[in-house]
Amino acid sequence: MSQLVESTDFQPTDKNFESKVHESFAKQPFMKTLGAILTKVTPGYCEIRLPFHEQLTQQDGFFHAGVIGTIADNAGGYAAHSLMPEGASVLTVEYKLNLLTPGCGDYLVARGRVVRQGRKLTVCLSEVSSVKDGQEKICAMAVVTLICIQ
Amino acid sequence: MSQLVESTDFQPTDKNFESKVHESFAKQPFMKTLGAILTKVTPGYCEIRLPFHEQLTQQDGFFHAGVIGTIADNAGGYAAHSLMPEGASVLTVEYKLNLLTPGCGDYLVARGRVVRQGRKLTVCLSEVSSVKDGQEKICAMAVVTLICIQ
Amino acid sequence: MSQLVESTDFQPTDKNFESKVHESFAKQPFMKTLGAILTKVTPGYCEIRLPFHEQLTQQDGFFHAGVIGTIADNAGGYAAHSLMPEGASVLTVEYKLNLLTPGCGDYLVARGRVVRQGRKLTVCLSEVSSVKDGQEKICAMAVVTLICIQ
Amino acid sequence: MSQLVESTDFQPTDKNFESKVHESFAKQPFMKTLGAILTKVTPGYCEIRLPFHEQLTQQDGFFHAGVIGTIADNAGGYAAHSLMPEGASVLTVEYKLNLLTPGCGDYLVARGRVVRQGRKLTVCLSEVSSVKDGQEKICAMAVVTLICIQ
Repeated sequence: MSQLVESTDFQPTDKNFESKVHESFAKQPFMKTLGAILTKVTPGYCEIRLPFHEQLTQQDGFFHAGVIGTIADNAGGYAAHSLMPEGASVLTVEYKLNLLTPGCGDYLVARGRVVRQGRKLTVCLSEVSSVKDGQEKICAMAVVTLICIQ
Repeated sequence: MSQLVESTDFQPTDKNFESKVHESFAKQPFMKTLGAILTKVTPGYCEIRLPFHEQLTQQDGFFHAGVIGTIADNAGGYAAHSLMPEGASVLTVEYKLNLLTPGCGDYLVARGRVVRQGRKLTVCLSEVSSVKDGQEKICAMAVVTLICIQ
Repeated sequence: MSQLVESTDFQPTDKNFESKVHESFAKQPFMKTLGAILTKVTPGYCEIRLPFHEQLTQQDGFFHAGVIGTIADNAGGYAAHSLMPEGASVLTVEYKLNLLTPGCGDYLVARGRVVRQGRKLTVCLSEVSSVKDGQEKICAMAVVTLICIQ
Repeated sequence: MSQLVESTDFQPTDKNFESKVHESFAKQPFMKTLGAILTKVTPGYCEIRLPFHEQLTQQDGFFHAGVIGTIADNAGGYAAHSLMPEGASVLTVEYKLNLLTPGCGDYLVARGRVVRQGRKLTVCLSEVSSVKDGQEKICAMAVVTLICIQ
């Protein structure tokens, strides 16, 4: 699969979308627990990086599927949040995660992009890649449905 | 939804299924990171408990969706693992998580049960409940597809 | 998996829920195309029967996965619709279908049950079984998310 | 979302992949029932067209969600099948369909593309678009997991 890229289809309704997303991300204690970093937010797009740490692994030494799902969900959630009006908050309704290859390497990158923005519901596609020595390999794909709470 | 209960449909092919699952669970560093406890394993069924901790929360103080997904996946995974032959290992192919109510309270309980066991693929249903003062409330449901690696 | 049963958890807000669901079902031309029959509606529960017909099959002579998905979706949708207020309509947001065994036999039965009813969103679990000579065997499971449009 | 395009990543192992897929498609009576046409197969990619017909609709006159799911599943399935070895058959393990806008217009186009090909399991992304007067609009997205049976 070609790498998921930023969208040019969307205009944010909240001009402070970038700081809004960074503030919300910073308020998630679980992101600190994981060591996840918000590396990019553009309208309808979000990128999260997660360095490898042994504390995040499953029984074979790979990133735990739950860790991969967490950043896939969050990348989709903040891609959606970037397009929401000021003061609105975002909740995940559901997500589906397909694990494609073991998550390993130096760090993971999760990229989330809005596929369809509705008034209430937004649907995002997320990809998570393993990066080792600068080489990326897709390890998971997710579809995330989010609801805008005003 | 009535609470998901243990199955009586399955006979384990590995008589040491219980210790096998406990050993595998103990080898998952991410379970220690979360503070998750494996509380029950019977043939085709698994129960995981996760005490509340502020480090596991999202921006509103609830359990992060990724945390809920992690134990839903793991409960399904070990329910499947309990029925697999000696020496086989289990990998999650995909899971889908619906978040029904905010995850909060004193602890979460994830219950996973095998719905269909095939030679290669097993499908499980998982439920995650919030428990506060002994009262349970379902907070999420997941369907997990797993593959048996021999 | 034990067979999915009717719920006793719900009170319908629309006392004409049963005729409402039957009327909506009768307005779906695709149900006639398939030959599907609405056999039961109780609050938060719906049952659809689909007799076997060669026109509904895939390349190996089994019910096509799309047929199974259609009645799984519809059973969930009408389970949700039964609890919605008068005048509201229901739309599927998404569904996920796991195919467990080939769909075959004399007819299929799809049973849908509400797991969580919210003001806007309702989540249902559906099971589809193959019935041959009166013997049922589960062939698919679905989780369906629906939205109430008022 | 930018339109899903053909892949250039894959080499088919079966040089007769195109005729193989067309033959299998022609053996699905349900495709005839729907009036679906296989319009394109390249390695790891498949396109299906479905003209509008009132018999395929739900209560509001739109394409039924089950119809949309059927061609999304089939497009993914045959994208996967195109890469499988001679003599292998393909079965859908599960699919998840998000409905984004009502399916309407002159016809639907479903495009399926392989995201990850494994020895046993293949994961595909499918998009379904409504086409009216030559204008396309995405109406659904699906992730399909398939298994290769040899």
